[in-house]
Amino acid sequence: MAMRLTGTFLDAVVADIPSNNWGRAEWAADFDAMRAVGIDTVILIRAGARDRAVFDSRVLRDACDVMPAYGDLMTLFLDEAERCGMDFYYGTYDSGAWRGGAHQREADLNMALADEVMERYGSRRAFRGWYICHEIPRYHEGAMVVYERLARHLRGLRDLPILISPWLLGRKEFPQDYLSPEDHEKNWQRVFERIQGLVDIVAFQDGLCAFTDLPAYLDVNARLCRNHGIACWSNVENFERGGVPMKFLPIDWRHLRYKMEAAEAAGCSKLITFEFSHFMSPQSMYPSARHLYRRYAEWLGIDL
Amino acid sequence: MAMRLTGTFLDAVVADIPSNNWGRAEWAADFDAMRAVGIDTVILIRAGARDRAVFDSRVLRDACDVMPAYGDLMTLFLDEAERCGMDFYYGTYDSGAWRGGAHQREADLNMALADEVMERYGSRRAFRGWYICHEIPRYHEGAMVVYERLARHLRGLRDLPILISPWLLGRKEFPQDYLSPEDHEKNWQRVFERIQGLVDIVAFQDGLCAFTDLPAYLDVNARLCRNHGIACWSNVENFERGGVPMKFLPIDWRHLRYKMEAAEAAGCSKLITFEFSHFMSPQSMYPSARHLYRRYAEWLGIDL
Amino acid sequence: MAMRLTGTFLDAVVADIPSNNWGRAEWAADFDAMRAVGIDTVILIRAGARDRAVFDSRVLRDACDVMPAYGDLMTLFLDEAERCGMDFYYGTYDSGAWRGGAHQREADLNMALADEVMERYGSRRAFRGWYICHEIPRYHEGAMVVYERLARHLRGLRDLPILISPWLLGRKEFPQDYLSPEDHEKNWQRVFERIQGLVDIVAFQDGLCAFTDLPAYLDVNARLCRNHGIACWSNVENFERGGVPMKFLPIDWRHLRYKMEAAEAAGCSKLITFEFSHFMSPQSMYPSARHLYRRYAEWLGIDL
Repeated sequence: MAMRLTGTFLDAVVADIPSNNWGRAEWAADFDAMRAVGIDTVILIRAGARDRAVFDSRVLRDACDVMPAYGDLMTLFLDEAERCGMDFYYGTYDSGAWRGGAHQREADLNMALADEVMERYGSRRAFRGWYICHEIPRYHEGAMVVYERLARHLRGLRDLPILISPWLLGRKEFPQDYLSPEDHEKNWQRVFERIQGLVDIVAFQDGLCAFTDLPAYLDVNARLCRNHGIACWSNVENFERGGVPMKFLPIDWRHLRYKMEAAEAAGCSKLITFEFSHFMSPQSMYPSARHLYRRYAEWLGIDL
Repeated sequence: MAMRLTGTFLDAVVADIPSNNWGRAEWAADFDAMRAVGIDTVILIRAGARDRAVFDSRVLRDACDVMPAYGDLMTLFLDEAERCGMDFYYGTYDSGAWRGGAHQREADLNMALADEVMERYGSRRAFRGWYICHEIPRYHEGAMVVYERLARHLRGLRDLPILISPWLLGRKEFPQDYLSPEDHEKNWQRVFERIQGLVDIVAFQDGLCAFTDLPAYLDVNARLCRNHGIACWSNVENFERGGVPMKFLPIDWRHLRYKMEAAEAAGCSKLITFEFSHFMSPQSMYPSARHLYRRYAEWLGIDL
Repeated sequence: MAMRLTGTFLDAVVADIPSNNWGRAEWAADFDAMRAVGIDTVILIRAGARDRAVFDSRVLRDACDVMPAYGDLMTLFLDEAERCGMDFYYGTYDSGAWRGGAHQREADLNMALADEVMERYGSRRAFRGWYICHEIPRYHEGAMVVYERLARHLRGLRDLPILISPWLLGRKEFPQDYLSPEDHEKNWQRVFERIQGLVDIVAFQDGLCAFTDLPAYLDVNARLCRNHGIACWSNVENFERGGVPMKFLPIDWRHLRYKMEAAEAAGCSKLITFEFSHFMSPQSMYPSARHLYRRYAEWLGIDL
């Protein structure tokens, strides 16, 4: 049987994707739809970004100028993950400021926030992984500091797998400025040397290169992971990139399938996606997501 | 009980928001949905823009190169407003040319158009206000001329409240070029001196600044209104701005609530929104609007 | 009775419009919806673009780096066209490279692909026309070569009508750099001299100029066609252009009607649209398309 998507990110504060505006009932229906197609892992893409957060955190309220959360999506997601027998990965907070040099503060803040999270939610059965949300496409010294300090702290709080999901400078999104698979490998070699032993899983985003370049990048990614004792997942993005002015809408099913098959061929051990709820859920605000779900279920041989 | 949205704009020719393509039945259902959540005021955002108009106006046909209206949305909106017990504000025509210097012509044209509107629709019971649609974010001499000439003429036709809804140069939309709340106050002080006694209500758009900057701008707006004897409403925009590439989709319910609470805290006397039909209607072309409506109704304690 | 839309393009690989993600059942429902409003002609906008194709072509696999097609949309479309009594026009493949000078290769590749298409699908009853998909807005020598070589080859394979659908440099999309109707005529005079006797039908796209400029462009187009013995159709685009940041969503019904009436007034002999399935289908991923369909059916006097 072909590999399927078994993990998805959860996108719960508006960063660049607008809100589905779901309440508890709609989220519950969404978890049912995930479970029906074999999702066993949900990864919070971020606990917060800039002025917004998924729960009313004392740490964020004190340190940043955040809006009220008006609810507790951490609890909702953990409830649903437990009801559906899924693993939940907690994703860190992204202030946006670390790229410009404030990486020590980003690490400090996230360490304090992780302490609060552990205290409030650490006893939850579904709490099974850490996701460091600070994304880079190439070596970045500030990010290395965030990864090192944060990974040590998170593992100290609880020894759970630590995931990152980098992007890459592919030809589709960066026609002027892309890294070829060879240059990508040289560049990421430096990163992997730094994160070896700290990060357990790397799931590169697969949507930024031309589709037909993907196998070459996936080979590089798998080799880098293998050589550094890191698990290689693939983040099989389920929204369309490249040439389409509407950013972002559900991907063509044929494109998703192509990328899944490429990841399997490269030897990735698990396929996750960004993300189920907007781009392939029957509940999504984008009606073509419902049709993507149907195509995917047909392909899996699931009778909806 | 918390303040709720009691007014909405009506957007009936395509300017920057695409058409819902509704006919009479869909508009009627929409007015029912508005009434169910307490909307008592509907404000036509503009009678026309450039080459399009909401009714076949003799004045616009003679003076501008407009397309046929293929119907009469003025009558439809007045019918619906009367059926639902709502006040209707008429919004002026925006040629787009007044920013570049043709403000005298803009005033002349709109005075003639208002005469025609008064003749055709002036007897309608729901006709209860004037909205001057020419929007500015800071002092603009041409706009002052339009406001002065038009406000005097409109009030002469019928003594009804006159509303404007300016934008503001906030950090979210204008990161390089924003006015701080202090600079905003100095700038708008000049405008308020000119419009005092002419304009009755000012409802600033609230979506252009960072959410957490909003309370400071609202305080300025409320003070400016108070000091000049003008009613202070807030235009609580219900579409997402800032960072989201899809322009424009329904706002996250938490963001809308935050802005409503901020407007209430600043002492605004009425909350209106731009606009119900695209961004929070169960009939909207954007499915997440239906969910925003549900969240809003839940919060109001209304059982749909 | 007013002229109606009797043809539509079919958009079946993602170029700039995201996928509806339909399978056989959804496409069948869509053809039913087309037939219900009088569509008798479907035109494949392109057999492929860059790395994607509507069927697993040996020619494209050998010559280009294409992804698997995972199905055969040529067969599906021909089946549906035959079931619904429609004519099917085959659209060529667009590598994207011909604009930059590779026009001889584009012609060669498309000639070989047309041979393969003729061999596989040439016996199908609905196969009734050729569409050369390489679009230009003004004289372009490389395109002339593609048109000349390809038109001769296609007609040699089977003597069916050959259609092109150019754009034009109108004021709405090209405010700095547009061609007035007079300049458009001079420019296209050169093109028509070259394509006379090769191309049978020209259907200019009608969405790029200001609505109220359209009659003047349509007069030019009709005269050019008349003077060169070419049928003049109009491609009445059914998505909104101009000022609307969301590219692309269904057009306002009033705008569509205005453009249809303008094309009829100019003497166009057939109205086609780009395209039914995304922008005016009751099945579309864009809910406002369903309402456009309703408005259109109402206008036709069809009781859905």
